[in-house]
Amino acid sequence: MPQRFGAGATRAGLKASGELDLALIVSELPASAAAVFTSNQVVAAPVLVSRAALRSGTAQGVVVNAGCANACTGEVGLAHAGQMAAAAANAVGMDPDQMLVCSTGKIGSFLPMDKVLAGIGSVAASLGAHDDDVARAIMTTDTVPKLSAVAHDDGWKVGGIAKGAGMVCPDMATTLGFVTTDAEVDTQQLQVLLKTAADQSFNAITVDGDTSTNDTLLVLANGASGIRPDPEEFAQALTAVCRSLSSQVVADGEGATKLITVIVNGAAEKLQAREAARAVAQSLLVKTSLYGQDANWGRIASAVGNSGVQARFDELTIKIADVTVLEAGKPAGPEEVDRARSALSSYEITIACSLGVGGESAEILTTDLTPEYVRINAEYEL
Amino acid sequence: MPQRFGAGATRAGLKASGELDLALIVSELPASAAAVFTSNQVVAAPVLVSRAALRSGTAQGVVVNAGCANACTGEVGLAHAGQMAAAAANAVGMDPDQMLVCSTGKIGSFLPMDKVLAGIGSVAASLGAHDDDVARAIMTTDTVPKLSAVAHDDGWKVGGIAKGAGMVCPDMATTLGFVTTDAEVDTQQLQVLLKTAADQSFNAITVDGDTSTNDTLLVLANGASGIRPDPEEFAQALTAVCRSLSSQVVADGEGATKLITVIVNGAAEKLQAREAARAVAQSLLVKTSLYGQDANWGRIASAVGNSGVQARFDELTIKIADVTVLEAGKPAGPEEVDRARSALSSYEITIACSLGVGGESAEILTTDLTPEYVRINAEYEL
Repeated sequence: MPQRFGAGATRAGLKASGELDLALIVSELPASAAAVFTSNQVVAAPVLVSRAALRSGTAQGVVVNAGCANACTGEVGLAHAGQMAAAAANAVGMDPDQMLVCSTGKIGSFLPMDKVLAGIGSVAASLGAHDDDVARAIMTTDTVPKLSAVAHDDGWKVGGIAKGAGMVCPDMATTLGFVTTDAEVDTQQLQVLLKTAADQSFNAITVDGDTSTNDTLLVLANGASGIRPDPEEFAQALTAVCRSLSSQVVADGEGATKLITVIVNGAAEKLQAREAARAVAQSLLVKTSLYGQDANWGRIASAVGNSGVQARFDELTIKIADVTVLEAGKPAGPEEVDRARSALSSYEITIACSLGVGGESAEILTTDLTPEYVRINAEYEL
Repeated sequence: MPQRFGAGATRAGLKASGELDLALIVSELPASAAAVFTSNQVVAAPVLVSRAALRSGTAQGVVVNAGCANACTGEVGLAHAGQMAAAAANAVGMDPDQMLVCSTGKIGSFLPMDKVLAGIGSVAASLGAHDDDVARAIMTTDTVPKLSAVAHDDGWKVGGIAKGAGMVCPDMATTLGFVTTDAEVDTQQLQVLLKTAADQSFNAITVDGDTSTNDTLLVLANGASGIRPDPEEFAQALTAVCRSLSSQVVADGEGATKLITVIVNGAAEKLQAREAARAVAQSLLVKTSLYGQDANWGRIASAVGNSGVQARFDELTIKIADVTVLEAGKPAGPEEVDRARSALSSYEITIACSLGVGGESAEILTTDLTPEYVRINAEYEL
């Protein structure tokens, strides 16, 4: 972890499985803090509490649980989130308004506060370099913990932890992501850089098109390295950590057997490129055909047509795994389609669409849609 | 069928299964004609040809094939669609511009015109009251043919045939639907009434959120009954036939095990009610939890929140199968959730959400999402 951060996790009994489910990340120093939150209008209680706490521009820690989202829980839920933050701050000897709070899990249940408070006491007593435990504690349908770190030659570090496998969609912070750094960065700059990094990472992925009520991506910069990095270099490191984490989220997408990059270029506007890429990435028909390793480019063309973006459909070009299957509106022959089908046996697949009306492009990372995704979400109980 | 309409179908060899795949519906008299077409920007060749033919306001027949969508086929596809219409018109002794044309099946393949032309010759020679054969010929992933009819006491009839099971989404005509009537109705009025009927039927259903490139809903009114019905009575009959057909499409939704009605009321605007209903109906998480018979109302609340519509989330009320699981923002107890879960074992389920900001409402009919849907679409080859 970056210097003078501590982290740890415990089994508070919130997951039926008995796994790690409550975690704490703490900076020994006051830290600049920035965050992006869910764009869902139904906002979980911990998001409301953390958003209010962040008005000061600084924070020194975050307490997080899995197993219960504390969303749609009204005033009781708000009180619980506040109590959770206060208890964690108290346990590590910190001002209550310096502790952020996050929850993830099932919507609509109340937190069992006795278990939460006992867990906080236990984890606060054993903080250390336990990032891996934190990453495990925040897992829900995740199958692997997600961590990333960049160490700069100058001596500062950026570390990140995230969770997410389903209810993942662009245009939001997505899921939970915690980034720590011992670089010196002002709050305002941190917020700008985090938004930029989020747009290139967590906001450019989709698993199922559903945006959660609890999404939070936050960064704490405690300056413990004594180094104020070149903003561009820091932005690169921050973006690299966020992209690594968000790729890990997609790679762990519920039931996924493919990691799919959808690229749209030749768009009139950046937003339109993004809209078209998202339409392809979210089409159930595209996602199921990729699962079936069927080079069904007609579904890709249809999804672009459905997106409503400006395009010259008589000039539309589609490549599947570098094989051109539709060129300037003309279907390729059966040999190309066969080549594309063979290429679909790979795990990583790129789909590229050229709209032929401008110079803007966008990229979205997604998964295929499998029977296993349905099974996981039909039986979801933690 | 309504008076002085004839229909028939044949095995032209366009489906690998060898089933009926080419059909013809013909009015012996000139008929007022109206249609609504796909809103997808990628528009199949037959849609372009039919749209042009309809400028005259009359039509006397439609030729339709399954097994090949003739979409994304460029100028060759346009020529094929024109030839198909001309050949059918010629075979029944009709002006070429009075014959409409539709196709459904895989996007991006060319029609095997030798088979199509031979099939047209064969079907034209055997027209009769073979509506059921037509309904079977236009099936793709459909498992049952879809027909509906209303006979008015005054002596006029409305008959309808449709297909569709996947690539079904609101805000379009959807799939293929053919309505015939021997009532006397002017073209202009017919178009208005058809649009109204479509909005209450084919435009209020979704299976997977994907709008096809070939969607066509058309009505031919040949006046053979000699009766000019009361417009309101005719509108009712037309809407009843369209609603019956569109319900049959959803009930036959690919892999579906549930027929789900999503009702949103208390919205500020009609469009917002519709948008929220669609968000719930298209959420993969809602659809999979209903498949799993899990009364996970949190996913419903989250989907409404994602829709971006105006709502008082502290006043949100959600009912699953008449059990109130969230009342004015407050979660119901475990007994209610258990009752809702039990009710989810039924085939037909209603989900109702009250947004608490106005008096507008909307209703969308949809299905659950099942492993079978994924299997069907991963292996789609006709």
